[in-house]
Amino acid sequence: MTEFHVTAEPGVPQVLTSRTFDAPRELVYRAFTEPGLLVQWLGPRKYTMTIDRYDLRDGGTWRYVHADDAGNAFGFHGVFHGDPSLDGMVQTFEFEGAPGHVSMDTLTLEEHDGRTTVRTNSVFQSVEARDAMVSSGMEYGMREGYERLEELLGTLIANG
Amino acid sequence: MTEFHVTAEPGVPQVLTSRTFDAPRELVYRAFTEPGLLVQWLGPRKYTMTIDRYDLRDGGTWRYVHADDAGNAFGFHGVFHGDPSLDGMVQTFEFEGAPGHVSMDTLTLEEHDGRTTVRTNSVFQSVEARDAMVSSGMEYGMREGYERLEELLGTLIANG
Repeated sequence: MTEFHVTAEPGVPQVLTSRTFDAPRELVYRAFTEPGLLVQWLGPRKYTMTIDRYDLRDGGTWRYVHADDAGNAFGFHGVFHGDPSLDGMVQTFEFEGAPGHVSMDTLTLEEHDGRTTVRTNSVFQSVEARDAMVSSGMEYGMREGYERLEELLGTLIANG
Repeated sequence: MTEFHVTAEPGVPQVLTSRTFDAPRELVYRAFTEPGLLVQWLGPRKYTMTIDRYDLRDGGTWRYVHADDAGNAFGFHGVFHGDPSLDGMVQTFEFEGAPGHVSMDTLTLEEHDGRTTVRTNSVFQSVEARDAMVSSGMEYGMREGYERLEELLGTLIANG
């Protein structure tokens, strides 16, 4: 089990995270870009994820919904800046429960000795919007999602 | 002449600006969205601006080039997040002279008593990237561009 690091400094509208996975970069990239894999790990276990669109190219739009058993549904959407590659991707992000608040996420994937470090860099329009996202459970959701990703990557490697 | 305000706090990867123009919001919006008007004011006077693409819609891509008489050319590109409206627009921004460094710009237009306040909110992936953009002449370029915009708006109003 590797550690999940989160940096959210007071007064700065940014959240940085990193976590290392026991998997090659190509596989991690697949888990981030193939909708059939993404829905198996992104976010907390209590949600069923449905992808409306995930057009992986410069200007491509994406949208997904997290739904729970109680009938709650949470939509998210954005656009990709530049063409995603093994090095990572840049995309905008908007939670439809707080329309008008947009952040920009940069994902980078670095491989060393067969392991891959996943870093995220999210910048927000204000410290208030950053704090609202953090207090809504961003860290918890990412942490549990990454636990699921680790399990998925292990399964994919075992079934290689 | 109204004032151009710029806020770029130490240690924060963000630049905020505001300036008020003696023109209704519809006209200011046209100056930001019609390519034939945009090329007449965006950036310093020494550059000739050419728009490659400017697809004003959610996921639409944009690209323009600033060229000077000495043969230098500087390209910029990005994508729009959400559909632009009279209230403003959100777009990503990448200077092709520093590839990989992407910022996100939020433009808002507010009208009061026939005058329009234009605010920009730019967030960067790091303080270093923000500082590099500021020291490259961002403020000077915006200030001179807005002087040109004020002149253009005056001409458009005079020509009714």
